Amino acid sequence: MAYDPNNVFAKILRGEMPCIKVYEDDHTLAFMDVMPQTPGHTLVIPKTESENLFDLSPDAAGALIKSTQKVAKAVKKGLNAPGIMIAQLNGPEAGQTVFHIHFHIIPREEGVDMKFHAREMADMDELAALAEKIKAAL
Amino acid sequence: MAYDPNNVFAKILRGEMPCIKVYEDDHTLAFMDVMPQTPGHTLVIPKTESENLFDLSPDAAGALIKSTQKVAKAVKKGLNAPGIMIAQLNGPEAGQTVFHIHFHIIPREEGVDMKFHAREMADMDELAALAEKIKAAL
Repeated sequence: MAYDPNNVFAKILRGEMPCIKVYEDDHTLAFMDVMPQTPGHTLVIPKTESENLFDLSPDAAGALIKSTQKVAKAVKKGLNAPGIMIAQLNGPEAGQTVFHIHFHIIPREEGVDMKFHAREMADMDELAALAEKIKAAL
Repeated sequence: MAYDPNNVFAKILRGEMPCIKVYEDDHTLAFMDVMPQTPGHTLVIPKTESENLFDLSPDAAGALIKSTQKVAKAVKKGLNAPGIMIAQLNGPEAGQTVFHIHFHIIPREEGVDMKFHAREMADMDELAALAEKIKAAL
Protein backbone atom coordinates (compact mmCIF):
# COMPACT_ATOMS: atom_id res chain seq x y z
CA MET A 1 0.00 0.00 0.00
CA ALA A 2 1.40 3.41 -0.93
CA TYR A 3 1.58 6.07 1.77
CA ASP A 4 -1.62 8.15 1.79
CA PRO A 5 -0.63 11.81 2.29
CA ASN A 6 -4.18 12.58 3.40
CA ASN A 7 -4.14 10.38 6.50
CA VAL A 8 -5.06 12.26 9.67
CA PHE A 9 -1.51 12.34 11.09
CA ALA A 10 -0.13 13.75 7.82
CA LYS A 11 -2.76 16.49 8.10
CA ILE A 12 -1.71 17.17 11.68
CA LEU A 13 1.94 17.42 10.57
CA ARG A 14 0.97 19.92 7.86
CA GLY A 15 -1.09 21.94 10.33
CA GLU A 16 -4.31 21.18 8.46
CA MET A 17 -5.80 19.54 11.53
CA PRO A 18 -5.33 20.45 15.19
CA CYS A 19 -3.70 18.33 17.87
CA ILE A 20 -2.98 18.70 21.56
CA LYS A 21 0.80 18.69 21.33
CA VAL A 22 3.07 17.61 24.16
CA TYR A 23 6.46 17.51 22.43
CA GLU A 24 8.08 18.32 19.09
CA ASP A 25 11.59 18.22 17.69
CA ASP A 26 13.10 18.25 14.19
CA HIS A 27 12.18 14.62 13.53
CA THR A 28 9.13 13.80 15.64
CA LEU A 29 5.85 15.09 17.09
CA ALA A 30 3.97 13.84 20.17
CA PHE A 31 0.33 14.60 20.95
CA MET A 32 -2.64 13.31 22.92
CA ASP A 33 -4.66 10.47 21.37
CA VAL A 34 -8.20 11.84 21.01
CA MET A 35 -9.61 8.32 21.46
CA PRO A 36 -7.52 7.25 24.46
CA GLN A 37 -7.34 3.62 25.52
CA THR A 38 -6.54 4.86 29.03
CA PRO A 39 -6.28 8.45 30.38
CA GLY A 40 -2.98 9.98 29.26
CA HIS A 41 -2.68 7.90 26.07
CA THR A 42 -0.13 9.77 23.95
CA LEU A 43 1.12 9.20 20.39
CA VAL A 44 4.57 9.83 18.91
CA ILE A 45 5.05 10.07 15.14
CA PRO A 46 7.96 10.76 12.79
CA LYS A 47 7.86 13.68 10.38
CA THR A 48 8.76 11.41 7.49
CA GLU A 49 6.09 9.91 5.23
CA SER A 50 6.17 6.37 6.60
CA GLU A 51 3.25 4.01 6.80
CA ASN A 52 4.74 1.50 9.22
CA LEU A 53 7.90 0.07 10.78
CA PHE A 54 8.84 -1.57 7.49
CA ASP A 55 9.17 1.57 5.37
CA LEU A 56 10.72 3.74 8.08
CA SER A 57 14.48 4.36 7.78
CA PRO A 58 16.57 2.97 10.66
CA ASP A 59 17.68 6.51 11.54
CA ALA A 60 14.07 7.69 11.66
CA ALA A 61 13.24 4.67 13.83
CA GLY A 62 16.06 5.69 16.17
CA ALA A 63 14.77 9.26 16.44
CA LEU A 64 11.24 7.96 16.99
CA ILE A 65 12.15 5.63 19.87
CA LYS A 66 14.25 8.34 21.52
CA SER A 67 11.30 10.77 21.49
CA THR A 68 9.01 7.98 22.64
CA GLN A 69 11.36 7.29 25.53
CA LYS A 70 11.50 10.98 26.47
CA VAL A 71 7.73 11.46 26.32
CA ALA A 72 7.00 8.15 28.08
CA LYS A 73 9.17 9.28 31.00
CA ALA A 74 7.17 12.51 31.16
CA VAL A 75 3.84 10.66 30.97
CA LYS A 76 4.95 8.38 33.80
CA LYS A 77 6.20 11.24 35.96
CA GLY A 78 3.59 13.84 35.09
CA LEU A 79 0.61 11.53 35.51
CA ASN A 80 2.07 9.30 38.26
CA ALA A 81 1.53 6.29 36.02
CA PRO A 82 2.80 3.11 37.68
CA GLY A 83 3.03 1.21 34.39
CA ILE A 84 3.58 2.25 30.79
CA MET A 85 2.74 0.14 27.75
CA ILE A 86 4.44 0.99 24.46
CA ALA A 87 2.69 -0.36 21.36
CA GLN A 88 3.21 0.07 17.65
CA LEU A 89 0.81 -1.63 15.25
CA ASN A 90 1.63 -2.55 11.66
CA GLY A 91 -1.22 -3.40 9.32
CA PRO A 92 -4.98 -3.55 9.86
CA GLU A 93 -4.58 -7.17 11.02
CA ALA A 94 -2.56 -5.83 13.95
CA GLY A 95 -5.09 -3.08 14.69
CA GLN A 96 -3.46 -0.19 12.82
CA THR A 97 -6.12 2.37 11.88
CA VAL A 98 -4.07 5.42 10.83
CA PHE A 99 -1.48 4.59 8.18
CA HIS A 100 1.28 6.88 9.36
CA ILE A 101 3.54 5.00 11.80
CA HIS A 102 2.94 5.88 15.44
CA PHE A 103 4.09 4.68 18.84
CA HIS A 104 1.39 4.47 21.49
CA ILE A 105 2.31 5.44 25.06
CA ILE A 106 -0.42 3.98 27.26
CA PRO A 107 -0.42 4.52 31.04
CA ARG A 108 -1.41 1.38 32.92
CA GLU A 109 -2.44 0.83 36.50
CA GLU A 110 -4.08 -1.94 38.48
CA GLY A 111 -7.85 -1.77 38.21
CA VAL A 112 -7.98 0.55 35.21
CA ASP A 113 -8.93 -1.46 32.15
CA MET A 114 -7.52 -0.62 28.78
CA LYS A 115 -9.99 -0.01 25.99
CA PHE A 116 -8.67 -2.04 23.08
CA HIS A 117 -10.86 -0.60 20.42
CA ALA A 118 -11.48 2.92 21.56
CA ARG A 119 -14.15 4.61 19.51
CA GLU A 120 -15.11 7.44 21.82
CA MET A 121 -13.71 10.93 21.55
CA ALA A 122 -12.23 12.22 24.79
CA ASP A 123 -13.18 15.53 26.36
CA MET A 124 -10.76 18.07 24.85
CA ASP A 125 -10.43 20.08 28.09
CA GLU A 126 -9.48 16.93 29.97
CA LEU A 127 -6.92 16.03 27.28
CA ALA A 128 -5.44 19.53 27.42
CA ALA A 129 -5.11 19.29 31.22
CA LEU A 130 -3.31 15.94 30.90
CA ALA A 131 -1.03 17.41 28.23
CA GLU A 132 -0.06 20.26 30.55
CA LYS A 133 0.96 17.78 33.24
CA ILE A 134 3.04 15.79 30.74
CA LYS A 135 4.71 18.91 29.33
CA ALA A 136 5.56 20.09 32.84
CA ALA A 137 7.38 16.78 33.41
CA LEU A 138 9.43 16.87 30.18
CA MET B 1 13.65 -1.34 41.70
CA ALA B 2 17.31 -2.24 41.09
CA TYR B 3 18.13 -4.40 38.08
CA ASP B 4 18.13 -8.07 39.06
CA PRO B 5 21.10 -9.78 37.34
CA ASN B 6 19.42 -13.15 37.85
CA ASN B 7 16.40 -12.45 35.69
CA VAL B 8 15.87 -15.03 32.95
CA PHE B 9 17.00 -12.77 30.08
CA ALA B 10 20.22 -11.87 31.91
CA LYS B 11 20.86 -15.62 32.25
CA ILE B 12 20.22 -16.11 28.54
CA LEU B 13 22.69 -13.29 27.75
CA ARG B 14 25.33 -14.95 29.94
CA GLY B 15 24.70 -18.32 28.30
CA GLU B 16 23.43 -19.81 31.57
CA MET B 17 20.08 -20.59 29.99
CA PRO B 18 19.29 -21.65 26.42
CA CYS B 19 17.27 -19.72 23.88
CA ILE B 20 16.18 -20.28 20.31
CA LYS B 21 18.13 -17.43 18.76
CA VAL B 22 17.09 -15.70 15.54
CA TYR B 23 19.47 -12.71 15.48
CA GLU B 24 22.39 -11.24 17.40
CA ASP B 25 24.67 -8.24 17.01
CA ASP B 26 27.02 -6.32 19.31
CA HIS B 27 24.18 -4.58 21.14
CA THR B 28 21.13 -6.84 20.93
CA LEU B 29 19.83 -10.41 20.89
CA ALA B 30 16.57 -11.75 19.41
CA PHE B 31 15.01 -15.11 20.24
CA MET B 32 11.72 -16.96 20.24
CA ASP B 33 9.34 -16.33 23.15
CA VAL B 34 8.80 -19.74 24.78
CA MET B 35 5.30 -18.69 25.85
CA PRO B 36 4.14 -17.15 22.58
CA GLN B 37 1.04 -14.98 22.42
CA THR B 38 0.72 -15.98 18.76
CA PRO B 39 2.88 -18.35 16.65
CA GLY B 40 6.14 -16.59 15.73
CA HIS B 41 6.21 -14.34 18.82
CA THR B 42 9.81 -13.11 19.01
CA LEU B 43 11.64 -11.01 21.62
CA VAL B 44 14.45 -8.48 21.15
CA ILE B 45 16.61 -7.42 24.10
CA PRO B 46 19.62 -5.14 24.61
CA LYS B 47 22.86 -6.49 26.05
CA THR B 48 22.93 -3.72 28.65
CA GLU B 49 21.57 -4.25 32.14
CA SER B 50 18.35 -2.29 31.75
CA GLU B 51 15.08 -3.03 33.47
CA ASN B 52 12.82 -0.91 31.30
CA LEU B 53 12.56 1.99 28.84
CA PHE B 54 13.32 4.47 31.59
CA ASP B 55 16.78 3.24 32.55
CA LEU B 56 17.90 2.41 28.99
CA SER B 57 20.31 4.87 27.38
CA PRO B 58 18.95 6.64 24.27
CA ASP B 59 21.72 5.04 22.19
CA ALA B 60 20.81 1.58 23.47
CA ALA B 61 17.16 2.36 22.69
CA GLY B 62 18.19 3.29 19.15
CA ALA B 63 20.11 0.02 18.69
CA LEU B 64 17.18 -1.92 20.15
CA ILE B 65 14.56 -0.46 17.80
CA LYS B 66 16.83 -0.97 14.79
CA SER B 67 17.22 -4.67 15.62
CA THR B 68 13.50 -4.90 16.34
CA GLN B 69 12.80 -3.38 12.94
CA LYS B 70 15.17 -5.81 11.21
CA VAL B 71 13.78 -8.88 12.97
CA ALA B 72 10.15 -7.75 12.57
CA LYS B 73 10.70 -7.51 8.81
CA ALA B 74 12.05 -11.07 8.83
CA VAL B 75 9.16 -12.34 10.97
CA LYS B 76 6.69 -10.74 8.56
CA LYS B 77 8.43 -12.10 5.48
CA GLY B 78 9.50 -15.47 6.83
CA LEU B 79 6.14 -16.33 8.36
CA ASN B 80 3.93 -14.49 5.85
CA ALA B 81 2.46 -12.49 8.72
CA PRO B 82 -0.08 -9.94 7.45
CA GLY B 83 0.15 -7.79 10.60
CA ILE B 84 2.86 -7.24 13.18
CA MET B 85 2.29 -5.83 16.66
CA ILE B 86 5.26 -4.35 18.49
CA ALA B 87 4.83 -4.07 22.26
CA GLN B 88 7.13 -3.10 25.10
CA LEU B 89 5.80 -3.26 28.66
CA ASN B 90 7.17 -1.26 31.57
CA GLY B 91 6.24 -2.29 35.09
CA PRO B 92 4.05 -5.12 36.40
CA GLU B 93 1.02 -2.83 36.07
CA ALA B 94 1.65 -2.83 32.31
CA GLY B 95 2.12 -6.61 32.22
CA GLN B 96 5.93 -6.78 32.39
CA THR B 97 6.98 -10.14 33.84
CA VAL B 98 10.74 -10.28 33.08
CA PHE B 99 12.59 -7.22 34.32
CA HIS B 100 15.09 -6.89 31.52
CA ILE B 101 13.65 -4.60 28.83
CA HIS B 102 12.33 -6.44 25.77
CA PHE B 103 10.43 -5.62 22.62
CA HIS B 104 7.75 -8.12 21.64
CA ILE B 105 7.27 -8.85 17.94
CA ILE B 106 3.85 -10.47 17.65
CA PRO B 107 2.49 -11.67 14.28
CA ARG B 108 -1.19 -10.88 13.87
CA GLU B 109 -3.75 -12.11 11.41
CA GLU B 110 -7.52 -12.05 11.12
CA GLY B 111 -9.10 -14.91 13.04
CA VAL B 112 -6.05 -15.78 15.15
CA ASP B 113 -6.59 -14.52 18.66
CA MET B 114 -3.73 -13.21 20.69
CA LYS B 115 -3.17 -14.78 24.08
CA PHE B 116 -2.72 -11.84 26.40
CA HIS B 117 -1.46 -13.75 29.35
CA ALA B 118 0.34 -16.70 27.86
CA ARG B 119 1.24 -19.26 30.47
CA GLU B 120 1.81 -22.29 28.30
CA MET B 121 5.20 -23.37 27.07
CA ALA B 122 5.39 -23.84 23.33
CA ASP B 123 6.67 -26.99 21.67
CA MET B 124 10.42 -26.43 21.23
CA ASP B 125 10.59 -28.19 17.85
CA GLU B 126 7.83 -25.95 16.54
CA LEU B 127 9.64 -22.87 17.86
CA ALA B 128 12.88 -23.99 16.25
CA ALA B 129 11.13 -24.47 12.92
CA LEU B 130 9.64 -20.95 13.12
CA ALA B 131 13.07 -19.56 14.03
CA GLU B 132 14.59 -21.18 10.92
CA LYS B 133 12.00 -19.47 8.71
CA ILE B 134 12.69 -16.11 10.35
CA LYS B 135 16.46 -16.50 10.06
CA ALA B 136 16.13 -17.41 6.39
CA ALA B 137 14.29 -14.10 5.83
CA LEU B 138 16.85 -11.92 7.62
